[in-house]
Amino acid sequence: MTSLASLSPLPDGSGVEIIDQTQLPHVLVRPTLRTLDEVAEAIRTMRVRGAPLIGAAAAFGLALALRRAADDAALQQACAQLLATRPTAVNLAWAVNRVAARVRSLAASERAAAAWAEAEAICREDVELNAAIGRHGMELLNALHVLRGRPLQVMTHCNAGWLATLDWGTALAPVYMAQAAGLPLHVWVSETRPRNQGAALTAWELAQRGVPYTVIADNAAGQLMRTGQVDVVIVGADRVAANGDVANKIGTYLKALAAHDNGIPFYVAVPGPTIDWTLADGGAIPIEARPAQEVTHIHGLDAAGRPTAVRLTPEGAGACNPAFDVTPARLITGLITERGVCAASRAGLAALYPEQAHG
Amino acid sequence: MTSLASLSPLPDGSGVEIIDQTQLPHVLVRPTLRTLDEVAEAIRTMRVRGAPLIGAAAAFGLALALRRAADDAALQQACAQLLATRPTAVNLAWAVNRVAARVRSLAASERAAAAWAEAEAICREDVELNAAIGRHGMELLNALHVLRGRPLQVMTHCNAGWLATLDWGTALAPVYMAQAAGLPLHVWVSETRPRNQGAALTAWELAQRGVPYTVIADNAAGQLMRTGQVDVVIVGADRVAANGDVANKIGTYLKALAAHDNGIPFYVAVPGPTIDWTLADGGAIPIEARPAQEVTHIHGLDAAGRPTAVRLTPEGAGACNPAFDVTPARLITGLITERGVCAASRAGLAALYPEQAHG
Repeated sequence: MTSLASLSPLPDGSGVEIIDQTQLPHVLVRPTLRTLDEVAEAIRTMRVRGAPLIGAAAAFGLALALRRAADDAALQQACAQLLATRPTAVNLAWAVNRVAARVRSLAASERAAAAWAEAEAICREDVELNAAIGRHGMELLNALHVLRGRPLQVMTHCNAGWLATLDWGTALAPVYMAQAAGLPLHVWVSETRPRNQGAALTAWELAQRGVPYTVIADNAAGQLMRTGQVDVVIVGADRVAANGDVANKIGTYLKALAAHDNGIPFYVAVPGPTIDWTLADGGAIPIEARPAQEVTHIHGLDAAGRPTAVRLTPEGAGACNPAFDVTPARLITGLITERGVCAASRAGLAALYPEQAHG
Repeated sequence: MTSLASLSPLPDGSGVEIIDQTQLPHVLVRPTLRTLDEVAEAIRTMRVRGAPLIGAAAAFGLALALRRAADDAALQQACAQLLATRPTAVNLAWAVNRVAARVRSLAASERAAAAWAEAEAICREDVELNAAIGRHGMELLNALHVLRGRPLQVMTHCNAGWLATLDWGTALAPVYMAQAAGLPLHVWVSETRPRNQGAALTAWELAQRGVPYTVIADNAAGQLMRTGQVDVVIVGADRVAANGDVANKIGTYLKALAAHDNGIPFYVAVPGPTIDWTLADGGAIPIEARPAQEVTHIHGLDAAGRPTAVRLTPEGAGACNPAFDVTPARLITGLITERGVCAASRAGLAALYPEQAHG
């Protein structure tokens, strides 16, 4: 769909080109990652981010590791290193385990090529999953638009667009599909402190595609909803429990509460690999604690156009920085999956994924 | 209570010294305002801020104007200029109208001195109101502390401390009183985007008084509440309607929703002058729209210690910046006033302020 891709495997299998998302929206830097260490570092520091994208990146990281050493010990070590980068998104473990399972029974000499091919398959499937989410979500947006009779006001949180996936995005796939179909809409982009993925990434990627948007402080979400300026909220997910509880970027829960309080539909866009069937509910989802410096400092462009980090708090101030929160299923209007829209409940998910719901 | 005051009238009546709150927490600058224009500019640009403090500052601004010209036209013009600076906090209009009413029947030659004396009275009364709020609020904190059996975890939003008032603060008065009484506590300071009054001002003023605190992104409030890390939320108010609906800094409503969803007491500290008896409910409270640049840009100290503004969003990004939201009374556990704690309801307020509740 776009010439500028969030992740591009090199044709010779020697590396993957990424967009360094820590430099956006100010500078477009496209480094090539050629080693396991480089991939792991890029995931940990969030140069590559978004649950589906870090799954794909980790899959390529494993393939790159196996080019250097492909015995069982190397395989195991590479998996462990990748799994340790970030704890919350289940796609990471899903992708690493999928590639490892694919190659484990092969001779060491065949593992790197097979891993690379599996990583490519994960990427192709991700695009298909997201396109399907987009089609199902677009139907919801169409129906809401008919009801409202004005350009549809969509609110999102963090970045769950094409930058966070291989293409289309999850939460933003319906927006791009609706835009392509000529449905008039406007996106409220909540900045998503502390790392500002909304203000920096979602704003940038919507602008790249020509979708009208307005940035707001996260705090403004409730006021906009209470004053009738939001028709629907769509967010992505880092992990969904079998009962429909959703872990997503910190602040998602507050938006869900406000949507619920104002009768505004609140949807979560969820590709199958984001569902963790082993978890009965969201209580057991591990929540990543990130560095205090992400709260006390922020970076942007100074008046001279130089990338600059500034401190916001008094010297020596402590900060607490949970990166995700859990939104209980009861606040979610529905899950938009590649198989259709379902209730955020065990029964809803089981109806769409009967092969998984054997618990 | 503190040697460093948020506002100090000069003994000769020629001006008022303030703390320039736009420079905190990095630099302590204490300019003296000597004219109506300087006072109005300081209120508009939020060098002076906080509902009670802008009321007091405006009262002195009117007195300073009357030193230069005190005829009826000058009085009317000065009032209009001050009332136009900021729309949401009712204390501003309350203080200006009180001073104007005090001097209107006097000879022009007597007006400046009488206005100055009235402004001083407003300051004295503000300290008394806040101290009383602190005593009533401390009783609540004591009771919760006994219940919890651990250092009390208090969450606040924006800045409603001694910087926002003449002393003690409103929301933070109970915290300072409890600290003085030896009750162990810790304050979660939400940064309060876009202007970061929490991260910049509340953190700074708590540190000045030695109260333990931790800064969080506004988005983290819900997750901390869901995981049992918050015992009580106390915020201030810019305007309270007669039914107990509360206008306060943008984001307050989201915290109230999260507190309600988790059974955590949510209190609003409200001095009498913040209650607008003319409004039946919060729907009619005017919500100030502030500049987009407050969302797209932020300032702090760069690595070399220089005050620096940085842009956070893509070039040309639009932003929407409502400065306040309205929290419906149904989400509020109680209002802490100088006369005691009451339900956030018409009946609750009427019981404490029978002389006002003639509606």
